[in-house]
Amino acid sequence: VSATRLWGWLSPDNPDPLAAAPLAERMLVEALGLSRLLPTPPEPLDERTLPASRLTPNQSAAIAAALAGRPPARDAASRAAAALGQSYPDQLQRRAGRCASPVDGVACPNSHAQLQALIDAAVATGFRVMVVGGATSVVGGLSVAAERRPLVAADLSGLGEIVSFSGEDRTVAAQAGIRVADLERRLSDKGMTLGHFPQSFEAATLGGSIAANGAGQRSDGYGRITDRLLRLRLATPSGEWLTEPVRHSAAGPWLGGLVAGSEGLLGAITEATMAVSPKPEWTFDAGWLFPSFAAAMQAARAAAQTGIGHSMLRISDEVETAFLSRFRQARAGLRRPPWAERIVLALKRAPANPSLLIAGYEGSARFGADAVRALRGLFRRHGGVALGERPGQSWRRSRYEAPHLRESLMARGLGVDTFETAAPWSRLAGVYTAVGAALSRAIGESSGGSPGIVMCHLSHSYPDAACLYFTAVFPRAGDALAQWRAIKRAACEAMVAAGSTISHHHGLGADHAPYAQREKGDASLRLLRALAREIDPKRVMATGASSLL
Amino acid sequence: VSATRLWGWLSPDNPDPLAAAPLAERMLVEALGLSRLLPTPPEPLDERTLPASRLTPNQSAAIAAALAGRPPARDAASRAAAALGQSYPDQLQRRAGRCASPVDGVACPNSHAQLQALIDAAVATGFRVMVVGGATSVVGGLSVAAERRPLVAADLSGLGEIVSFSGEDRTVAAQAGIRVADLERRLSDKGMTLGHFPQSFEAATLGGSIAANGAGQRSDGYGRITDRLLRLRLATPSGEWLTEPVRHSAAGPWLGGLVAGSEGLLGAITEATMAVSPKPEWTFDAGWLFPSFAAAMQAARAAAQTGIGHSMLRISDEVETAFLSRFRQARAGLRRPPWAERIVLALKRAPANPSLLIAGYEGSARFGADAVRALRGLFRRHGGVALGERPGQSWRRSRYEAPHLRESLMARGLGVDTFETAAPWSRLAGVYTAVGAALSRAIGESSGGSPGIVMCHLSHSYPDAACLYFTAVFPRAGDALAQWRAIKRAACEAMVAAGSTISHHHGLGADHAPYAQREKGDASLRLLRALAREIDPKRVMATGASSLL
Repeated sequence: VSATRLWGWLSPDNPDPLAAAPLAERMLVEALGLSRLLPTPPEPLDERTLPASRLTPNQSAAIAAALAGRPPARDAASRAAAALGQSYPDQLQRRAGRCASPVDGVACPNSHAQLQALIDAAVATGFRVMVVGGATSVVGGLSVAAERRPLVAADLSGLGEIVSFSGEDRTVAAQAGIRVADLERRLSDKGMTLGHFPQSFEAATLGGSIAANGAGQRSDGYGRITDRLLRLRLATPSGEWLTEPVRHSAAGPWLGGLVAGSEGLLGAITEATMAVSPKPEWTFDAGWLFPSFAAAMQAARAAAQTGIGHSMLRISDEVETAFLSRFRQARAGLRRPPWAERIVLALKRAPANPSLLIAGYEGSARFGADAVRALRGLFRRHGGVALGERPGQSWRRSRYEAPHLRESLMARGLGVDTFETAAPWSRLAGVYTAVGAALSRAIGESSGGSPGIVMCHLSHSYPDAACLYFTAVFPRAGDALAQWRAIKRAACEAMVAAGSTISHHHGLGADHAPYAQREKGDASLRLLRALAREIDPKRVMATGASSLL
Repeated sequence: VSATRLWGWLSPDNPDPLAAAPLAERMLVEALGLSRLLPTPPEPLDERTLPASRLTPNQSAAIAAALAGRPPARDAASRAAAALGQSYPDQLQRRAGRCASPVDGVACPNSHAQLQALIDAAVATGFRVMVVGGATSVVGGLSVAAERRPLVAADLSGLGEIVSFSGEDRTVAAQAGIRVADLERRLSDKGMTLGHFPQSFEAATLGGSIAANGAGQRSDGYGRITDRLLRLRLATPSGEWLTEPVRHSAAGPWLGGLVAGSEGLLGAITEATMAVSPKPEWTFDAGWLFPSFAAAMQAARAAAQTGIGHSMLRISDEVETAFLSRFRQARAGLRRPPWAERIVLALKRAPANPSLLIAGYEGSARFGADAVRALRGLFRRHGGVALGERPGQSWRRSRYEAPHLRESLMARGLGVDTFETAAPWSRLAGVYTAVGAALSRAIGESSGGSPGIVMCHLSHSYPDAACLYFTAVFPRAGDALAQWRAIKRAACEAMVAAGSTISHHHGLGADHAPYAQREKGDASLRLLRALAREIDPKRVMATGASSLL
């Protein structure tokens, strides 16, 4: 966890995307019913507000002994950086230059053996260990409830190597702390891809992606991270756990599968063997306009159930379509769509209040051509108007930009958060309405009269179900944390009431763990607790999701 | 478990496939180096040899109370039928009219509530419960180690209904005791398929397929049964377990996934929600001859890694190819291949000692045509000679025949068993050699001078790995059980030594559980034991795999 990441995605290397976009600011002011945006730049960390590290000399010595003589870092910046992820409450703290619950020290093991020794030291000398990968959790994955025992972050950035690669088996084994982007670059040199492209791609780690059971933007083609998971090595309070050697097996239940989504509760992933795919020969992403979100969802369901082999499909609802279109224009300094674009849309008889669908293929040129023909035919039959590849290219260019934009809006007095879920197709429209209404209501009640902006897209589809992803933008209230809590609670309660999952791919963290308790049910929870008790009887492994147990 | 199934697949409805095939018998005699085949018809069950039922009046009354007044069946045929599956030792017992460890009674719950009540009665009055589905386990799934407590079979044939169906979500929820064949027929009426076609298709149940983590013959296209599993309901000694509502979720580890492969250790599946697919518009299965098994395996790997979308691919090694070809001829009353066939093969320049590959597609006519074109090109590049659809049709016709043939050979003094595993492509040739050699050696040492017939096919492939499936035919020795134990041990030890799994899709049962202990490793086993302890502290659930714990 480098100190430069203390300010999230807007490091000095990543300039403010709205720095020179006055029209975009004005558009936001209008959409939110405000008179102006308030500059709220982040404050530097106020080191004096941090509680002192509680590590005892004995514990520090034990950590140093585990790490070949290197004592844990105990400076304020390191301790705060390791405790703050990308959740909304974490953002608020970071921007205020505060960190109410920093870790007591940061240890940087650089091997499985060192991480195992660190955990052993924790068991022996009475501190807790929280594994920190990319620190990109947007749901409080690093928000560990305080307790008497000191908390030590195990920063996995020293476990960043590829362990082995087989071109014949198309597998790679890598250490858990490797950045997904780094792994992807190195696989690319071998003509391969992991196919995992989460929005946190630039910062997320392989181990973190598995622990949070992530899904990347092209999961419709490559599957979610679990689908590529073959074998894991973990360091746990009960020693090494090397999961089953062959995934494709009927030799009893696949215990290794439990690690996906475990968020550190069952130990620290140190190595993962993953299935990789050949780098695509051909990538094609294009856009279509549908008369409504509902019509586009029908088309998406048909595509998911047809087995076309596309790699991604996302649909913005009418609000998100309009917002993104106007926002893009405004950032380009335009007050309205260019003439050419308007003429083209008129000629194509594009719908008036449309829903934008972006679908894409990655893979062999040969199968791709047929897949794209099939998509085109299917979308046409469902009332879609083809816009060609430009919207797809635009999506591709900006696919990792959202976290940067969020920082930028947060620096202008606004609040931004996202809320995602998954449900069967037959209940998706109901979930869409219920969660959207809950968000709008909660924002209306807490944002000083502003209606906020509540928009949604569908992404990650399956033959039986799909994910809905809501984005809310609203003016921050005086008590910004209380305001967010009300909004978050409204969204989560609506999901639980609708029987949709509390998270399709963001994970649990402290923010979702209470709702997951209700979702998983008593029997599954009892089993999960039994597993955690067996592997970690002293509850040494700490994570935001610990309250699930 | 109907009494007609007591004699395995050769019920009166299923006549002996070799009844009028003297040439086939002669061919076997020659291949095995024997002078003749010995008629060894099955003996009727000798009821006097069965130990008496140990159920107490109190236990019988508790069972009757759980089942709306119906007491457990305690007749010899029912008690033996529920305790004998299709493993080799079970076959030997059944054919000898014996059953050393029959269950003490057979209960037939006809709802989740009744099965839960039965398990509750077991906890309360001190008997054990073994769930029996299709009783098709070939690895001792019903071979429960004896202990003081009586053993009651819960026959799930009364849980055979479809609970709900959604055409929109393409899901079906069905009771666990429904036969896969029956479910398939009923889905077919709705234009759908589950796509699960194990060799035990005619008799296996949905719950049994999930509990044993089965894979059907078209798993390359439809996935294995787990891949279609969305949600489960179980009756357990700790009460009802309804697994997570949404499979596509990052709300913590998916505990429901543990049920696949659990073989009853974690409770009795009573209902399953599965993803279904549209019935194929088009089915295409064709054959190719390759110069060697090794060359065909290279082609199979390329196909699995190309993402062609084929639904099945199997390759017989040179021995199996020759055996099946000669056996088919002999059954047809031919002493050599027909002239026409020989001329065609000569014209096609078919290899001399070939390996037969059958590959097939099921799905949309549109994508299928392209998939088949791709397969054809790929196989040609790897040296395959196309034989057209006839070998594919022949495979399709006889795809469920193997269990019938096995009965037929067992009735002629021969032993037949199958041994399957999975390993990464890079180690597959080594596994093939090692397991084949171990089988040949063990047969040579135990079969009175006959070399036996050891043949193998590859089936069920993945981008990273594939399954190898060995069939061994040998003359039964005087102590047939000891002979088989030596052969089985040799095969299993060779798999363990090669690091391949002890089972790709047959499951654990009593025969594989000891090897699975070594395969899974200490940490995974500890966790599995903790799960079983939590859900079943009194170890009321009994199954062949119980020794894994």
